[in-house]
Amino acid sequence: MKTRAAVAVGAGKPLEIMEVDLEGPREGEVLVEIKATGICHTDEFTLSGADPEGIFPAILGHEGAGVVVDVGKGVTSLKKGDHVIPLYTPECRSCPSCLSRKTNLCTAIRSTQGQGLMPDGTSRFSVGGEKIFHYMGCSTFANHTVLPEIALAKVNPDAPFDKICYIGCGVTTGIGAVINTAKVEIGATAAVFGLGGIGLNVIQGLRLAGADMIIGVDINNDKKAWGEKFGMTHFINPTEVGDVVAEIVNMTKRGADQIGGADYTFDCTGNVKVMRQALECAHRGWGESIVIGVAGAGQEISTRPFQLVTGRTWKGTAFGGARGRTDVPKIVDWYMEGKIQIDPMITHTMPLEDINKGFELMNTGKSVRGVVIY
Amino acid sequence: MKTRAAVAVGAGKPLEIMEVDLEGPREGEVLVEIKATGICHTDEFTLSGADPEGIFPAILGHEGAGVVVDVGKGVTSLKKGDHVIPLYTPECRSCPSCLSRKTNLCTAIRSTQGQGLMPDGTSRFSVGGEKIFHYMGCSTFANHTVLPEIALAKVNPDAPFDKICYIGCGVTTGIGAVINTAKVEIGATAAVFGLGGIGLNVIQGLRLAGADMIIGVDINNDKKAWGEKFGMTHFINPTEVGDVVAEIVNMTKRGADQIGGADYTFDCTGNVKVMRQALECAHRGWGESIVIGVAGAGQEISTRPFQLVTGRTWKGTAFGGARGRTDVPKIVDWYMEGKIQIDPMITHTMPLEDINKGFELMNTGKSVRGVVIY
Repeated sequence: MKTRAAVAVGAGKPLEIMEVDLEGPREGEVLVEIKATGICHTDEFTLSGADPEGIFPAILGHEGAGVVVDVGKGVTSLKKGDHVIPLYTPECRSCPSCLSRKTNLCTAIRSTQGQGLMPDGTSRFSVGGEKIFHYMGCSTFANHTVLPEIALAKVNPDAPFDKICYIGCGVTTGIGAVINTAKVEIGATAAVFGLGGIGLNVIQGLRLAGADMIIGVDINNDKKAWGEKFGMTHFINPTEVGDVVAEIVNMTKRGADQIGGADYTFDCTGNVKVMRQALECAHRGWGESIVIGVAGAGQEISTRPFQLVTGRTWKGTAFGGARGRTDVPKIVDWYMEGKIQIDPMITHTMPLEDINKGFELMNTGKSVRGVVIY
Repeated sequence: MKTRAAVAVGAGKPLEIMEVDLEGPREGEVLVEIKATGICHTDEFTLSGADPEGIFPAILGHEGAGVVVDVGKGVTSLKKGDHVIPLYTPECRSCPSCLSRKTNLCTAIRSTQGQGLMPDGTSRFSVGGEKIFHYMGCSTFANHTVLPEIALAKVNPDAPFDKICYIGCGVTTGIGAVINTAKVEIGATAAVFGLGGIGLNVIQGLRLAGADMIIGVDINNDKKAWGEKFGMTHFINPTEVGDVVAEIVNMTKRGADQIGGADYTFDCTGNVKVMRQALECAHRGWGESIVIGVAGAGQEISTRPFQLVTGRTWKGTAFGGARGRTDVPKIVDWYMEGKIQIDPMITHTMPLEDINKGFELMNTGKSVRGVVIY
């Protein structure tokens, strides 16, 4: 079949809107009509050429929502008409990782997905006979795409595509980091570094988890109002205080021994220096710091090992530790029940033709989330 | 009263055996006759001058066992004749840390202990009227010493002092790192870097916890037989393999996806490069790496944040995460029941007069543990 897509033709080049050829679903695969897709920093990371594993030409996009149009042989959990969210982290429920009960990092299709291919080692996309690569197993910048059954979460059909597409990455990453990775408990203190699309979702995850003190950190004072909208209780602009670590330690002094430090801290910046600050302002004895942001190629985090020996834990999270097929439908329900907010974060919507403008809005910090509506 | 002690008169100088003055216990304090004490790398770290917080003159030693001789006012949990192990990590059971259920790092007397003083801000030791500082709240290189009640574990009176003194630091640190910090489960794979006095105890902790594969790593091939004595199943000499991380990943490939990496790794070297290797050979998705070794002043650990984002956790442990008064008596019981071994690790014993020889045996790698018997 033919479908419309924004194709990444090369590193650093604007996406090109064109008609592409799409093969139908093979065994275990599903054809989905994408109804809406978010534009995320990870797409920009690859498009810019910064991603050492980036391949071109490719159809980017990994934060979508849509409807099942057709299913291949052997597909049992989905049928035509089901509403779905594509999963860049699949959930096969039978690999050692899925069975470990310790991680969401399903390995069933890891190697082919990393190469921009379907599990059988081929691509479904082409133009004029030339292969176009898939991206993160999703390629939601195409109006239609093919995914493995294990990479689709079936969700509430009443939920609006142009909002829940954001659950395909940013919302789940932020809320999941709080709930699945940090397992924040009621009454905790927390600090969130970077109040962009991920950080705001960490904040609403913390509110959901019942955290007492939610400190937002951003160099842009405009983010204060944004953070407060989602549950932030305190704001620090690190350029306005001498030492952001000392500031957070002071703010979080509780209890008879007056030892400060946040119970949980989250880096949502991708800046390795900020990751270190996030670790070091975690509470002695039990503070946990979660790296969410993606650092530039070759960059390293560092600290004195004393920070760990005195009881801090350094962790990371991918897709918020969420098991896509199990957890994403629940997050969609939470949205429908009003437990979490998404609407205010979708600051811009646009047709596919304007997707490059969406990237520009993101890169200049003007949008929290821009969404393409097909 | 008068007692005999090995006094650290200055950085880099041999200990001097002398008679010192010891004041009796004040309120909440206990006078203990030390019967035996181990010599540990931490004592050497301070004696050598490498410890930036080292204070002189001081009576070092923190791995002892002895008998209560006298108790001060208000002491309720101990009486004359009780057998005890001094605790450099006390357990007050009422500070925010003790009550957190998340850490063993009691803060009740932290500030004075770090200054070489009793909780009231004074020292009990002197010679010719000149104050001598306490060390790690213990000072077990004196035949008699005074400790706060909260810094003493009451143990089985049948247990031999010259063996259980080692539970005051090395045994508990190693076994506790496995049980309390990593919480290793039956069937796990593990790698232990550095097979000295701590590493061997990590190994026996792993055996106790039911680990399947216990890989020991040391640059000294003589350590292979030592490791095997305590439960090590595989040995790697990193100088004999190209890349110790790749070697461990290969050895631990299990399951359908053939992704290797140890479930738990432990650094017992204090070398920051080894700490990085220990992290990076932990399993994708769930591997945890525990820093036990103490690094030199100012040294830093580093890695790519990708290692954390893909599911590895970096932690540390002090005193094996053990709550001294609660857990140390249990470990003594385990020794008495034959669940753990200590005797083979006590390779050398000596009278107090020969304590400097004990440091030499340790510094030249000839002893696993040297013990002074009073």
